[in-house]
Amino acid sequence: MPLSSVLNQIDTDLPNSIDRLLELLRIPSISTDPAFKPQCEEAADWLVANLKSLGADASKRITTGHPMVVGHIGETGPHVLFYGHYDVQPVDPLDLWDQDPFDPALQETSKGKVIRGRGSSDDKGQLMTFVEACRAWKTVHGTLPCQITFFFEGEEESGSPSLVPFMKENAAELISDIALICDTGLFGDETPTIVTMLRGLLGEEVTITGPNKDLHSGMYGGAAINPARVLARIIAGLHDENGKVTLPGFYKGVPELSNSVAAQWAALEFDHTEFLGDVGLSTPAGEAGRSALEMIWSRPTCEVNGMESGYTGDGFKTVLPSKASAKISFRLVGTQDPLEIRAAFRSYVSDLLPDDCTVEFADHGTSPAAHMATDHPAFEQARTALSQEWPKSAAYVGCGGSIPIAGHFKDVLDMDAMLIGFGKDDDQIHSPNEKYDLSSFHKGIRSWARILDAISSR
Amino acid sequence: MPLSSVLNQIDTDLPNSIDRLLELLRIPSISTDPAFKPQCEEAADWLVANLKSLGADASKRITTGHPMVVGHIGETGPHVLFYGHYDVQPVDPLDLWDQDPFDPALQETSKGKVIRGRGSSDDKGQLMTFVEACRAWKTVHGTLPCQITFFFEGEEESGSPSLVPFMKENAAELISDIALICDTGLFGDETPTIVTMLRGLLGEEVTITGPNKDLHSGMYGGAAINPARVLARIIAGLHDENGKVTLPGFYKGVPELSNSVAAQWAALEFDHTEFLGDVGLSTPAGEAGRSALEMIWSRPTCEVNGMESGYTGDGFKTVLPSKASAKISFRLVGTQDPLEIRAAFRSYVSDLLPDDCTVEFADHGTSPAAHMATDHPAFEQARTALSQEWPKSAAYVGCGGSIPIAGHFKDVLDMDAMLIGFGKDDDQIHSPNEKYDLSSFHKGIRSWARILDAISSR
Repeated sequence: MPLSSVLNQIDTDLPNSIDRLLELLRIPSISTDPAFKPQCEEAADWLVANLKSLGADASKRITTGHPMVVGHIGETGPHVLFYGHYDVQPVDPLDLWDQDPFDPALQETSKGKVIRGRGSSDDKGQLMTFVEACRAWKTVHGTLPCQITFFFEGEEESGSPSLVPFMKENAAELISDIALICDTGLFGDETPTIVTMLRGLLGEEVTITGPNKDLHSGMYGGAAINPARVLARIIAGLHDENGKVTLPGFYKGVPELSNSVAAQWAALEFDHTEFLGDVGLSTPAGEAGRSALEMIWSRPTCEVNGMESGYTGDGFKTVLPSKASAKISFRLVGTQDPLEIRAAFRSYVSDLLPDDCTVEFADHGTSPAAHMATDHPAFEQARTALSQEWPKSAAYVGCGGSIPIAGHFKDVLDMDAMLIGFGKDDDQIHSPNEKYDLSSFHKGIRSWARILDAISSR
Repeated sequence: MPLSSVLNQIDTDLPNSIDRLLELLRIPSISTDPAFKPQCEEAADWLVANLKSLGADASKRITTGHPMVVGHIGETGPHVLFYGHYDVQPVDPLDLWDQDPFDPALQETSKGKVIRGRGSSDDKGQLMTFVEACRAWKTVHGTLPCQITFFFEGEEESGSPSLVPFMKENAAELISDIALICDTGLFGDETPTIVTMLRGLLGEEVTITGPNKDLHSGMYGGAAINPARVLARIIAGLHDENGKVTLPGFYKGVPELSNSVAAQWAALEFDHTEFLGDVGLSTPAGEAGRSALEMIWSRPTCEVNGMESGYTGDGFKTVLPSKASAKISFRLVGTQDPLEIRAAFRSYVSDLLPDDCTVEFADHGTSPAAHMATDHPAFEQARTALSQEWPKSAAYVGCGGSIPIAGHFKDVLDMDAMLIGFGKDDDQIHSPNEKYDLSSFHKGIRSWARILDAISSR
């Protein structure tokens, strides 16, 4: 029983696994702050040494920013790439930490043991779940069940400037059957997830100009066009009474959930009253007839992110504004084409423009939605494996925001990616007192052992 | 011919009238700057002395701010009060002046002679037109044709904090048959005006709150209500397709122009292409079927003066805003009731509010429209008198903004007011290089002599 032996080894070796993680957590590899460049190098070196101790052919790879770490191990079976990042967020405000963020410790809490320290969850702890699974497998069997490429970056928290160039230059070395990414979380505390859909984004800024300067609303009010009113009308018309976006062709390429995924989401028993209650709301405000999970994961949106016109300081000025502007973004799903939607948006705005107004558009970027190819056999294999480890069955889920790395594997290397992670909502990533549940770490390692077993079996 | 003698005296004495005005202009009576308090006193003292030299019973009257000047002359005939202000605007930026603002001079320009210096138009020059008319009358006839109360304040450019209290405390001394106010302008260069309607103002600030904090539009976009969208819908619904305000009851008390006033306005041959062209516009944007003059003088409006939500800095943030706010003002006419309209506005907003939003209103003041009682015989007498002095007939006009003093005479003293002035659009009041056309000054003095004659005759 190769898998059960590995799982036993994981359980037995857990104290040492924790120690290795704590070692890595002690290195303050803050990527955004140039003062910590040597520490980023140190973390990369530590990882190279750690991978070499597994028997991997690992090396630190210089970039114009912080180094990448690439390692290879295993000669037979399917080829998987594993991605994680060794850099961490800054730690300020330091006075809100209950301990030195880089003096990590295993702590008892009312909800169980946690590993506390900067990077424990995001992403060193998650990264090490996979490495420790490999170590256990190697210890028990002397080899890995498949070919593995480790790919760690040190710039994820600072915009990943070197990532795409490095992927392009080293494509031949990186291309694998599938990419595994461990930087996401559980649903609730007990449901493992595989993120299979990530919404895309279209950012637009629209500035309407009416009079060539701010006017006195007494002198001109009534006769002069008010661009704030024009903008309000434009924004108000973007949604119909059922919450649907009105732009022609907007829903082209928006898929319905498959029966299987719809069933998985239903099984999550998502409580929108809690989700919305946390932010002071109660009623899902999106398209009529859609569940809250659909609204945030699988349906496209149009949101005003910012809006400004005229006098916005204290008190009152009877100004008739010269300009009104709004930042508007669209979350995209399926095969919605950002460029087509941008064109439809700009045409809609221009059509509503009165004679005396002009409009300027600023482009704040586009990215299409990413939908993982869940027909790749690894997806169902991983879902089954995860379901065996955790209290509840694993689910394919969506992610309302964007996780650029997932798109890069597709765009640059034409690889599918499986986003699997074990973080919890209360891990306080990017905040003081970041932690990673010991159960996340332990069961995470076991999860990867199960997944490696599943995808390596015929 | 009592009048023609007075007009001759005015023409003959013009050089001395100019010298007296230049004397007053040399006193830097800037009311907003406490450093110039002694100069405000000095200007008040100068005026008291000047009125006394006419034979008026004049005195400086202490307030908690700058002093008032009150003077009385004449024993018989109707009783008129004349209002002007002796304080002036600050002069910065000083480097944009072509001369010392308080070293006034008579200058030749391509458009004729001007008196240049701070206060030359606003309001010392205008104030002195009346005083000089009285001086000429007194010189020729040894007496005035009616009873006159002079009432000068020194805080008009700094909010007039002492004005209403002083009017209340001295009501018995100030109440007259009618108030004459000289602080407005000609229409174009040749048409004298009497302002008979001043729009009122209702200022409201509305703040819509959705989520209890700014959210990530990826995580919450679609499910969480966006207050910027709610606000846009509220603003967009305030006007119908014909530019009319939709609030129930809004047009209650909005009068149509009388045939006489409509004819006077038509005779003005107002060129809206020039008026709007100056600010980069071409098309009157108010109610369909209304002229541009109606839009700015006699029709009520609803304008957005400011609007703000979410992220408005450089670049883009995919924030789903917690709050959206707007400053909205209504210009009121006729007998529109500001309090009823406020209630209608707040009720309209509340009705459009989704379940998960709350709204807060801030009150930025109310003032009803002022309509002068043009059936008071002085109005037609003055209009005829003005028409005899100037190239074009005088017109009753509106004023889109507010001139608080006119309202105060009505509210505090129950007096009608006639707003008559001789400023021009290019006088650069409140700006560097302020000037008053010598023709404004000269014909202004003659205008008052004619008006005094007209209203004193049976």
